[in-house]
Amino acid sequence: MATNVFFAAGAKLWPEYREAIQAACAKKGLSISLSDAAPDPAAVDYIVYAPTAALSDFTPFTRCKAVLSLWAGVERIAPNPTLTQPLCRMVDSGLTEGMVEWVTGHVLRHHLGMDAHITGQDGIWRHDSKPPLARDRRVTILGLGELGTACAKALSALNFPVTGWSRTQKHIDGIACLSGDEGLEEALARADILVTLLPRTTATENLMSAERFALMPRGSFLINPGRGQLIDDDALLAALGSGRIAHATLDVFRVEPLPPDHPFWAHPGVTVTPHLAADTRTATAAEVIVENIRRGETGEPLLYLVNRDLGY
Amino acid sequence: MATNVFFAAGAKLWPEYREAIQAACAKKGLSISLSDAAPDPAAVDYIVYAPTAALSDFTPFTRCKAVLSLWAGVERIAPNPTLTQPLCRMVDSGLTEGMVEWVTGHVLRHHLGMDAHITGQDGIWRHDSKPPLARDRRVTILGLGELGTACAKALSALNFPVTGWSRTQKHIDGIACLSGDEGLEEALARADILVTLLPRTTATENLMSAERFALMPRGSFLINPGRGQLIDDDALLAALGSGRIAHATLDVFRVEPLPPDHPFWAHPGVTVTPHLAADTRTATAAEVIVENIRRGETGEPLLYLVNRDLGY
Repeated sequence: MATNVFFAAGAKLWPEYREAIQAACAKKGLSISLSDAAPDPAAVDYIVYAPTAALSDFTPFTRCKAVLSLWAGVERIAPNPTLTQPLCRMVDSGLTEGMVEWVTGHVLRHHLGMDAHITGQDGIWRHDSKPPLARDRRVTILGLGELGTACAKALSALNFPVTGWSRTQKHIDGIACLSGDEGLEEALARADILVTLLPRTTATENLMSAERFALMPRGSFLINPGRGQLIDDDALLAALGSGRIAHATLDVFRVEPLPPDHPFWAHPGVTVTPHLAADTRTATAAEVIVENIRRGETGEPLLYLVNRDLGY
Repeated sequence: MATNVFFAAGAKLWPEYREAIQAACAKKGLSISLSDAAPDPAAVDYIVYAPTAALSDFTPFTRCKAVLSLWAGVERIAPNPTLTQPLCRMVDSGLTEGMVEWVTGHVLRHHLGMDAHITGQDGIWRHDSKPPLARDRRVTILGLGELGTACAKALSALNFPVTGWSRTQKHIDGIACLSGDEGLEEALARADILVTLLPRTTATENLMSAERFALMPRGSFLINPGRGQLIDDDALLAALGSGRIAHATLDVFRVEPLPPDHPFWAHPGVTVTPHLAADTRTATAAEVIVENIRRGETGEPLLYLVNRDLGY
């Protein structure tokens, strides 16, 4: 009997993923029946899912062994009460690499004060305003999952003293790992540059509030490639206004695309990038999907299984 | 008899270096007599030198065991015919760190296309224009000395495929090392991003000529933190005009400060930074100076001795 895989991640992604999933199957010697339509939901073995598609009722998929997300963030699907099947997040090496490049680039941009040179080519030779060395610029990363840990290691390799904070205590070579409420206060107090890479959960919603911004050093930088909901937008605008935050570079927003009239666009202290920090790459993502189908079929533990209570 | 050290690097640097050199001596248990004046040149044992100072005739310093440069680049002093004493370059860990940070930052800036976001906050969400991963962006570094090698390693750690070129063949783990004229052609052909970190010598003057720019991929980037003389300025302006070079970020120039009316300042495809990529740091540089005095006094080989024939 064929393994039926239902691609429920939208028509836009279907052509590239059909090809990439078939290629990944051929590589692993796996035979599947892949379709972007599910004539009989009760015959579907695996669902490839993205929140950009219409599927929201998982009840009819009675034989389905796993829902395999193409997205790393699963906050939209994890609370779905009709989803009783195991849910797996995407952890894609291409996505991690892209995130490390974007975060390292923007940390160095703020560290080196690049914007003044990029926007201020006025013929005046300002040789006296030099940045400190990275070893004297403290970076704090909130969130030590796959992405936060990879960014912490890359920045630490460039000599930045890196503090990492996570819900549960982690231990990572060369990174000062903190956890808990007190740990968060200490982590923010050290944040000359703050990178927010937490998942969106009820516990992280509006984590960066007015009170928490006030704990950061004056003139610090915020970089958010995580989730828009981590930031209280009004509190951030106030912190920019008071000089507590010198500049914010934001890749994610509560509403995307960010509406043209949102104050972030015109604010001189905010750089908006259009959710491009990290992107699932088709070829490597298809390999993760197929590996989980192989595991499901052989009864091996699935990779990147979501803890539904925690929401990630 | 005291060891007489003559600080001939200018009045501006004297206060900070007096303190830093004395501190470094105390750390090593070395006793010296340090002065910024040399009443009797024939009694001087070591000269601390920078080209910003007036000293140009080394003939009267008959007892001098070494001239210790505070600068990494020694092209102004190396050809001096009155200099018969051993000459040592500065190789300062702080300078290397600063260079790696500046080069890595600007490579990532061009790789990620940051300028469009920094200067173009127009409310339009351009989600479709994403950069490739670093693993698909080739970086070439001309010059594999202390600084070039450190930059090559940092960029390779971020997954950029790095090609390095040097006069004599080098072998560095993870870096495709080339040398010679044919190697240079191949290195330039691979340069999606080119970093020029060669010393200034007669052989490197105008190395980046019209012919050499023509070997680079169309739409590539040039980053020059080395020496202004490595670049034929008119050839660069022509390569920018034709689209061969998409953007040049320049930290060093034939004349510094770069005159306000130089075309680089107003060119939309050029970013000028005021010779700040890497700077000798007083504390670490003083330690290198004092270590060489200690070596001179105990007869150990001096560090970073300049080969006068090669000029570096």
